Amino acid sequence: MKIAIAQINPVIGDFEYNSSRIKYYAGKAKERSCDMVVFSELVISGYPPRDLLEKKDFIEANLSCLFRLVDEISGIGVICGFVDKNPVDEGKPLYNSAALFENGKILHRVNKRLLPTYDVFDESRYFEAGTECTPYTYKGEQIGITICEDVWNDKDIFKKRIYHINPVELMVKGGASLLVNISASPFSVGKKEFRRNLFGAIAGKHKVPFIFANQVGGNDSIIFDGTSAVFDGHGNIKALASDFEEDIIFYDFGEQTGITYEKNIHPVSGADVEQVMKALIMGTRDYVVKCGFSKVVLGLSGGIDSALTAFIAAQALGSENVLSVFMPSRYTSADNYEDTKKLAENIGVGFEVIPVDGVFKEFIRLLSPSFREDDPDITEQNLQARIRGTVLMALSNRQGRLLLSTGNKSELAVGYCTLYGDMNGGLAVISDIPKTVVYDLAHFINREKEIIPSRIIEKAPSAELKPDQTDQDDLPPYEILDSILKGYIEDLKGAGELIESGFDPKLVKGVISKVDMNEYKRHQAAPGLKVTTKAFGYGRRYPLAQRYTQSIYKK
Amino acid sequence: MKIAIAQINPVIGDFEYNSSRIKYYAGKAKERSCDMVVFSELVISGYPPRDLLEKKDFIEANLSCLFRLVDEISGIGVICGFVDKNPVDEGKPLYNSAALFENGKILHRVNKRLLPTYDVFDESRYFEAGTECTPYTYKGEQIGITICEDVWNDKDIFKKRIYHINPVELMVKGGASLLVNISASPFSVGKKEFRRNLFGAIAGKHKVPFIFANQVGGNDSIIFDGTSAVFDGHGNIKALASDFEEDIIFYDFGEQTGITYEKNIHPVSGADVEQVMKALIMGTRDYVVKCGFSKVVLGLSGGIDSALTAFIAAQALGSENVLSVFMPSRYTSADNYEDTKKLAENIGVGFEVIPVDGVFKEFIRLLSPSFREDDPDITEQNLQARIRGTVLMALSNRQGRLLLSTGNKSELAVGYCTLYGDMNGGLAVISDIPKTVVYDLAHFINREKEIIPSRIIEKAPSAELKPDQTDQDDLPPYEILDSILKGYIEDLKGAGELIESGFDPKLVKGVISKVDMNEYKRHQAAPGLKVTTKAFGYGRRYPLAQRYTQSIYKK
Repeated sequence: MKIAIAQINPVIGDFEYNSSRIKYYAGKAKERSCDMVVFSELVISGYPPRDLLEKKDFIEANLSCLFRLVDEISGIGVICGFVDKNPVDEGKPLYNSAALFENGKILHRVNKRLLPTYDVFDESRYFEAGTECTPYTYKGEQIGITICEDVWNDKDIFKKRIYHINPVELMVKGGASLLVNISASPFSVGKKEFRRNLFGAIAGKHKVPFIFANQVGGNDSIIFDGTSAVFDGHGNIKALASDFEEDIIFYDFGEQTGITYEKNIHPVSGADVEQVMKALIMGTRDYVVKCGFSKVVLGLSGGIDSALTAFIAAQALGSENVLSVFMPSRYTSADNYEDTKKLAENIGVGFEVIPVDGVFKEFIRLLSPSFREDDPDITEQNLQARIRGTVLMALSNRQGRLLLSTGNKSELAVGYCTLYGDMNGGLAVISDIPKTVVYDLAHFINREKEIIPSRIIEKAPSAELKPDQTDQDDLPPYEILDSILKGYIEDLKGAGELIESGFDPKLVKGVISKVDMNEYKRHQAAPGLKVTTKAFGYGRRYPLAQRYTQSIYKK
Repeated sequence: MKIAIAQINPVIGDFEYNSSRIKYYAGKAKERSCDMVVFSELVISGYPPRDLLEKKDFIEANLSCLFRLVDEISGIGVICGFVDKNPVDEGKPLYNSAALFENGKILHRVNKRLLPTYDVFDESRYFEAGTECTPYTYKGEQIGITICEDVWNDKDIFKKRIYHINPVELMVKGGASLLVNISASPFSVGKKEFRRNLFGAIAGKHKVPFIFANQVGGNDSIIFDGTSAVFDGHGNIKALASDFEEDIIFYDFGEQTGITYEKNIHPVSGADVEQVMKALIMGTRDYVVKCGFSKVVLGLSGGIDSALTAFIAAQALGSENVLSVFMPSRYTSADNYEDTKKLAENIGVGFEVIPVDGVFKEFIRLLSPSFREDDPDITEQNLQARIRGTVLMALSNRQGRLLLSTGNKSELAVGYCTLYGDMNGGLAVISDIPKTVVYDLAHFINREKEIIPSRIIEKAPSAELKPDQTDQDDLPPYEILDSILKGYIEDLKGAGELIESGFDPKLVKGVISKVDMNEYKRHQAAPGLKVTTKAFGYGRRYPLAQRYTQSIYKK
C-alpha cells in the first residue's frame, strides 16, 4: 500500500480554506497513485478551536465540510480529523474523531480515547472519551487509527501515566498491521527528539509500522512543528516531513525491503536555536496573517530584545511590512540612536524617531499637584514606558499595523516590565524566550555576518528609565536568574527543592516572590509564542488573589 | 444528632488563616454542643487553587494543615474539604477530597467523583475521579458525603447529563440516612433558587435529609454566595445561612417534628438586583483585600458606569479609601464636572480634577509627522482614553491604590472600550453587568434617596471622545443590544437562531462580528466579577487568530 501524509496549516474556523488545502493535497497524493492520504487531527476545523466547540453552528459547519469532502474527493482513501457529535444525551456532547472515507462513503470512524487536559490542553472540557480500539481492514491492511494523545501512555516510556488504558496496545491486540496516528502535537524544545524516540519505540516494540501525521502552523500561542513521519516495524524512520512548513511525504509499504519508495527524508532544523528561530518566525507570521494583518510596528530601544523581535518580524512578514520606532528620552544613551538606526538598515525595516520627553514633562506638570513632593520613583519609570506604549498604539491604530511587544520571558517572569507600557501589543513574540536564549538567538542571527550590531549584544541590559540604570541593579545575573526561573516555572520545583539544589535561599525566595507577585501583569499580557514546556499564558493558570507566596516568603 | 454548618471565606493558599477560621467556627459549634461541624469543599486551601495544585509543596502544606487540625480540634466531628494525593502512579496525581475526623483520627475519606470541567471549572486538569460512594456510620447516622458537582447529575432535573453516574443514588442505595454535600458553588443570578429546588427535590425524592455546606467570598472573578442550608427528608428547608458573608447555622436531627432546633433561617437577599449588588460589593472587597490592597482609585466620567463603580467601591472598602478622578478634555460636557463632584460628595469619596488636554495636544504635536494629513479618527479617541488610563496608573503606582476599571459587559462585548486606556485596572468591577442592568442597579441605589445624581442616570450614554458623540451613534439601543448579547454569549445561540427568534439579520451579524473581532481586547482585560452564567474571562476561551466569524459575516 502506498500512503501519503499531508501536513497542512489550517486556519481555525475557516472551513472553506481548510477544505481547499485538503483537496489540493489529496490531489497531489492521487497524482502519485497513492492508495491513501492521511491528514492531521481536527484538520477540518483547525486545532485548537477552543470554545468555538460550544457553538452548535460551528459543529454543523465542520460536519457539512466533512460530508462535502467525502463527496468531492474520489479515487483515494482519506483519513482526517473532525469533530463528531455524541449521539446520546449522556456524557459530553462531542467527540474528537477521525474518519476514513473513500469514494463518497465514510468507511470507519474512531473517537479519541485519551483526552489531554493539562497545560494548554482542555479536551475534557469539550469531548467525551471514545470507548473502542478496533482496527479496520482496508486494502489488506488492518489499520489501527489513534488520535494524538492516544499514543502517549506507553508504560515503558512514561513512569507516571495519567490514563488507565493504552489504545496502542489494544489496537495491536486487535490485530493492527499498521498504526496511524493523526495529531496536533505542539512544538517545544526537545519535543521532536522525544516524539521520534516514542514513536520508534512503539513501532519496534509491537513490530508494526507507525505513521505520524501532524499539524503544522501557529495558532495563537501554540506552534505546531509538523515533522510528520513514517516508522517501519523495526522503529526506523523511513519518511520524514519538514518542520515549520506545509509538506507531503509518501511511503510504499509494498516495498519494505529497506529501500524507501523515494527520497523521503525531508530536511528539518538541527540545533535547538535553529528550531526556536523557525518556530518564532512561523508563529509570528501565522498570528499576524491569521488575525487579518499584514503590517506590524514595534519599538526599538537599542537593546537586544527589541533587536531580536525586529529581525523575527522582518523574516516573518518581509522587512517592507515592519516599522520600527525609536523613542529616546532624557535617560537614553547616545549610542542607542546609532545602534538602532544601523540595525533597521541591516534588516531593511522602516525606522522612525519620536522623542518622548515633551509628553513626559507635560504629564509631570499635570500630575505634580497629586504627586506632592515625593521623590521620583517607579511611577516616573512606568510613565515613560506608558508614553512609549501609547505612541506605538497610536501608530498601530492609524496605520493598521499590529503592535509587537518585545519583552523576554525572564523579564515577564519577575515583572521587570510595565503593564500598559512596553507590554502593549497584539503578540508578545519572545515572551517564552529566557534572556540567556535571547543572546543565543542573537549570536545565531549573526553567525555569518553582523546583522544585529555587536554593541547591541554586548552592552549591559538596561530599561533606561532612570539615570545609569542596568538590569543587574535589581536582578541577579541572567544565567542564575534563568536557572531559578526554569526550575520554578517549567519544572514546578518549590523553594525548598531549589535551595537544596544549591541556589542561595534569599535569592530563591526573592525571585519566587517576584514571579508570584507579578501574576497580575501577565494576566493582562498579550499572547506569546510558546516554545518551552511551560509558557506564561493560558497553559499556566494561577489565582491572582492568593497568599501562598507571602506565606512562603515569610519563612 | 446536632449539626453545625460553617460557611467561611478562605483565602487561597493562606493555610494559617484558613485554619484559624476553621478552629474558630469549630469552637462555636462545640459551644452549642454540636456532634458535628461541616465545612465547605477544599476549605483548607480555598477554592479554586488552580495551578497552585501543580506545586508539590502546596499539596504538602495543605496536608500538614489538615493533620494539624485533626490533632488540634477535639470533642466534635468535623467534615472538611482538602486536597488528597493519589497513592498510585496511574491517573491524575490528586483527589478533591473530604475528610471526616474526630479526636485526632481521620475516620473516613471520600473522593469527588464528578469533576466539573466547563466554564470556569478545570477539575479534570488536576484531579482523578473518585470511584466509591459508601456511607459512613457516625453516631448512629449513615452519612453519605458528596462533594459539590457530585449532586448535580440527577436525571429528573437535568435532561442532558454530562456524567454517567449519580453519586447521590449510589449513596442512597448504600443506605445513607443523611446526605452531606460540601461545595464551592459560585453565584450567578438565579442560581440560589435553582440550588434550592435541586437540593429540595433530591431530599424529597430519596426521603433523606440533605445538608449543603457552601463556600462564601470572592476569589478573583468567582463569587461564592454561601446560602448553606439544611433540607429535611420532605425537601423542606429547615436551616439557611446568609448570603455573601461568613455564617454558621445549626440543626438538630433529633427533633424532626417540624419544629426546628431554633430560629435558623437567616436573612438572604431577595430581588436579583439586590443579590447582584451584594455580590459586586463582596467581590470587590475580597479581590482588593486578598491582593493586599486597602485603597483604590478610579476615573469618574460623569457617566453611569463609573458612578456605579464608585458607589460599589465605597461600600466595599469604605469611602475614605476611594479616590475618584475627573479628567475633562475638550469634548467633556460642562454638566459632567458638577455631576461627578456631587456624586463624589454624596458617596463621600476623594475627588480630584486632572484635565488632559495639555498632554493630548503634546501627543498630537509629537505624532503629527507620522500621522501626515489624515483626518482625526479612532486613533485620537483612543489616545484620549490612553492618556486618562496613564494618569490613573500614575496615581495607582504613586499612592499604592488598586485601579478599578469601570466598563460594563455590553461595551466590553462589542469592543466599545480602549485597550490600555479605560480598560486599565486591576479589577473590572462591572464587566459582567450588561448596560440595562447597570441602570437597574443605579435605580436600586437611589431607591430611598438620590445618591447618584439623576442627571447621570438620565443623560444619553457617551464616551465623549469626539464632538457630540453618543453610544447610539454606533450601537443599537441597549435593550436590543443586550438581548442579542445574552443570546450569543450566555445562551450560545448562533446567528441563525438569533435571526429566527426575530432580530434583524444585519444587526445580528453586525453585533456578533463586533463581539468576535474584539476578542483580543478582552484577552488583555482585567479580571471581572462574574455574576451571569457566562462572563468574559477564564470561563470563556476563544481563539484570537480564527476566521469563523468572518466566514459567517460574509454569508
